[in-house]
Amino acid sequence: MAKGLFITLEGPEGAGKTTNREFLAERLQLAGHSVVLTREPGGTGLAEKIRELLLAEHDEPVAVDTELLLMFAARAQHLQQLILPALEQGSIVLCDRFTDATYAYQGGGRGIDPQRIAVLENFVQGSLRPDLTLLFDLPVADGMKRARLRGQLDRFEQERHEFFEAVRNSYLQRAQSDPERFRIINAALPLSQVQQQLLPVLDEIRDRDGC
Amino acid sequence: MAKGLFITLEGPEGAGKTTNREFLAERLQLAGHSVVLTREPGGTGLAEKIRELLLAEHDEPVAVDTELLLMFAARAQHLQQLILPALEQGSIVLCDRFTDATYAYQGGGRGIDPQRIAVLENFVQGSLRPDLTLLFDLPVADGMKRARLRGQLDRFEQERHEFFEAVRNSYLQRAQSDPERFRIINAALPLSQVQQQLLPVLDEIRDRDGC
Repeated sequence: MAKGLFITLEGPEGAGKTTNREFLAERLQLAGHSVVLTREPGGTGLAEKIRELLLAEHDEPVAVDTELLLMFAARAQHLQQLILPALEQGSIVLCDRFTDATYAYQGGGRGIDPQRIAVLENFVQGSLRPDLTLLFDLPVADGMKRARLRGQLDRFEQERHEFFEAVRNSYLQRAQSDPERFRIINAALPLSQVQQQLLPVLDEIRDRDGC
Repeated sequence: MAKGLFITLEGPEGAGKTTNREFLAERLQLAGHSVVLTREPGGTGLAEKIRELLLAEHDEPVAVDTELLLMFAARAQHLQQLILPALEQGSIVLCDRFTDATYAYQGGGRGIDPQRIAVLENFVQGSLRPDLTLLFDLPVADGMKRARLRGQLDRFEQERHEFFEAVRNSYLQRAQSDPERFRIINAALPLSQVQQQLLPVLDEIRDRDGC
């Protein structure tokens, strides 16, 4: 059995996941924990190449099943090469997006039946689920404004407002249906107030990791 | 329901699938059939990019599930963009490798449980199966010799003798367990004698396609 802690950060572009992942990592490392930072889709050389295919524009429409299978192909590689070995070694893995993002984007956004996603989730992960998931939630318009300020948009970021509303609703529904695993962070507030919300989460992680 | 005919050509590198696919296509076109030639993994722009990932050397071991999911990601795209539309239009699709190759290479060769492959087959294809499958069979040593003569070997072609024995056995077992769909072609014979074996197959295809 894995000895580390598997913590995922979820939410749209512009929600501050990267900044706050750094914030968490720094404090956990200072407290003596071994921390591994990674992201999905990606996290290994091959998985990053699959990510490139997922985010790029193509001359043909990308079938929804193709997108879903590519996501899980990258995930299988990431788990095998990076996440599972890090957990075995007792590290805390802080992962920017994981399968909840698949339910939100491919399920909520693209309309794939969640039961089809569950087939692949079980196929690739077996019984592995994150120990803790932080959902950085903010209104769609705020996230889109922040993402646009960053420059060129990828294939997902070019989707319309309704797509992102469906993504947000799907994320919130998942969080509400599994409060043991999820912590909802109000990411619309100024950074200092977002990080204030992370302090009890840090305590909880330290307690669970027994350090 | 699809109105065309979905015919797959299976077997190892060096078995003459490409040459004989041309032979079949030419004769069917002369008889007035609409024929679409394609191959797996690949067949569309995006699926060919996935093929490149599958055949390339990587700096990390490729997890068996990753390989399997990439195969089916390419297949989902190929079905959606090319095979299903061609069948809808009443064409005969001659496809160089399909899911039987996945059972042979990833199942027989890599040792993935066939039941795991069946999960993805059903996920991507629903009830779609080839109408007819031609297995070009030849002893492993012959195929390896022919493949080597062609130049640089890809990630699969570099596998060892036992891998290809397992692939061949898996193909033959599948053919024997489903004689309605499979026709085994002795591909170790000279080309003219291989094509002699294809003549009754051509008659059968013409009968089925009603042309």
